[in-house]
Amino acid sequence: MKTHLDCIPCFFKQALEATRAAGGDETAQKKILDEISRIIPEFPLESSPPEMATIVYRLVREITGITDPFKEVKEKSNRLALDIYPELKRKVALSEDKLLTALHLAIAGNIIDYGVKNSLDVEHEIEKCLNEDFNINSVSDEDIFDYQEFKDAFSKAKSIVYIADNAGEVVFDRVLIEELNNNSSDKEIIYAVRGKPVINDALYEDACQCGVDKIVRVISSGMDAPGTIIKSCSDEFIKLYENASMIISKGQGNFETLSGEDKPIFFLFKVKCPIVAKEVGCELGSVILKSKLKHDNIRKG
Amino acid sequence: MKTHLDCIPCFFKQALEATRAAGGDETAQKKILDEISRIIPEFPLESSPPEMATIVYRLVREITGITDPFKEVKEKSNRLALDIYPELKRKVALSEDKLLTALHLAIAGNIIDYGVKNSLDVEHEIEKCLNEDFNINSVSDEDIFDYQEFKDAFSKAKSIVYIADNAGEVVFDRVLIEELNNNSSDKEIIYAVRGKPVINDALYEDACQCGVDKIVRVISSGMDAPGTIIKSCSDEFIKLYENASMIISKGQGNFETLSGEDKPIFFLFKVKCPIVAKEVGCELGSVILKSKLKHDNIRKG
Repeated sequence: MKTHLDCIPCFFKQALEATRAAGGDETAQKKILDEISRIIPEFPLESSPPEMATIVYRLVREITGITDPFKEVKEKSNRLALDIYPELKRKVALSEDKLLTALHLAIAGNIIDYGVKNSLDVEHEIEKCLNEDFNINSVSDEDIFDYQEFKDAFSKAKSIVYIADNAGEVVFDRVLIEELNNNSSDKEIIYAVRGKPVINDALYEDACQCGVDKIVRVISSGMDAPGTIIKSCSDEFIKLYENASMIISKGQGNFETLSGEDKPIFFLFKVKCPIVAKEVGCELGSVILKSKLKHDNIRKG
Repeated sequence: MKTHLDCIPCFFKQALEATRAAGGDETAQKKILDEISRIIPEFPLESSPPEMATIVYRLVREITGITDPFKEVKEKSNRLALDIYPELKRKVALSEDKLLTALHLAIAGNIIDYGVKNSLDVEHEIEKCLNEDFNINSVSDEDIFDYQEFKDAFSKAKSIVYIADNAGEVVFDRVLIEELNNNSSDKEIIYAVRGKPVINDALYEDACQCGVDKIVRVISSGMDAPGTIIKSCSDEFIKLYENASMIISKGQGNFETLSGEDKPIFFLFKVKCPIVAKEVGCELGSVILKSKLKHDNIRKG
């Protein structure tokens, strides 16, 4: 996904919020806004928004000297999510279609975003999804939910790369991965996290705190972007990604960076930004389980 | 009021919206965003936000070649407001405290802002205020309403400069001015509009369309800013402003540019921006009738 002009005001807003989160004073905040101003005229709009976000967060680290402003927030969201792990498991166990419920929960977990500061919202959203009875009829008209395609692709897949998004959300991913593992023994699932801290995106330590390392292999994409910019990923990640027969991509940032790739990707996320909603062709807040290849084929006719 | 760092993302957002309103294509939009980017590091934060907005709207005029993108919108809001003029008059006539009702309506009229595009909201807001019964008890805890100070200042004033804000709103100002005129014959009220088109701010032609020129003298402040930057105003305006014994300032833009002045100003507006809300010390959406000198004296102790 390219950068839209509407992303530009948002880059400044994010820079300000990130500098404040890192404890940067007004001088640091202004310095970072000025740096972004100098970069904007040179930034190619063909790049995806997370490429600019990478620059923003690098500047914040450089100017404030704080490398991981969301460290505590991430630990806390992992703990909160682990607290409800037994409930998530029970919900899956009691449901008619276990995989469907696990998929819905994994997407619901994507609400644990940047906005973790607004923890009430997150708890409310999770509460809501715990009370919901997921079945194929609970998919609204505004959602995109390529469930059949997902099942077909999974049944044929040998190696699956699952690209994580946020800390906390990792627990929801674990529930889905456990359910996928229950459905097969002939597949290898690899869980990819970011290589360096960026916002509240999941790192290796988050995967461990949430127990994912006990069930599948965890690797780093090498990224310090809030997304997956293939050309900048580690060689290890690129090799696994290229050879994967199925890719599960969590969150908006991964969608924004991978939507142009010609790969068997399934995008799982909640739509939280009006520009992404426009790009996907759905409403804000929609639940997305989108098969990249299916939609590309529809577009081609 | 100084420019806050949070105003910077908003400048870009406004620039984008204004260029689109002027029919500028993506190339024009990007060009304007790039120009603003180049200006930001040099822009002194001691300046008020409307000083930057002036630069934004000058750029939009220069690059798109459209000098008055809101011309039709302004004519339409004048017409809509004139349609309800008889109702506004009836409401004042039937109320217990006519001046209080006229003041409330004049502040309510300030809802006809930039966001005229969202005409449903405006009609809903006006409908709401027409149904409301204004009395001194209807002022909420979140509002600032220096009514007694306003009446005292008005009773002593000889010459009053009334600085307009938006087209459409002018009809509401007319109702207040007529009520002020009913209360005195020994005073001169001068109605000041902008000198050049900026957003949907009222010009001389709007004052005429709304019939204000028939009841008081209308002058131009000479401004092409969405506010009143004294040092850039016309000599005629400055002379009248300096000699005025009372100044009525409508809208946020005039508040942002005049809040630092040591003058007997009364600010009448609805709070529509979180930064202004913080500056004033009230909630978003609050109704403000604020005596500048009273609050300065409180601050001085």
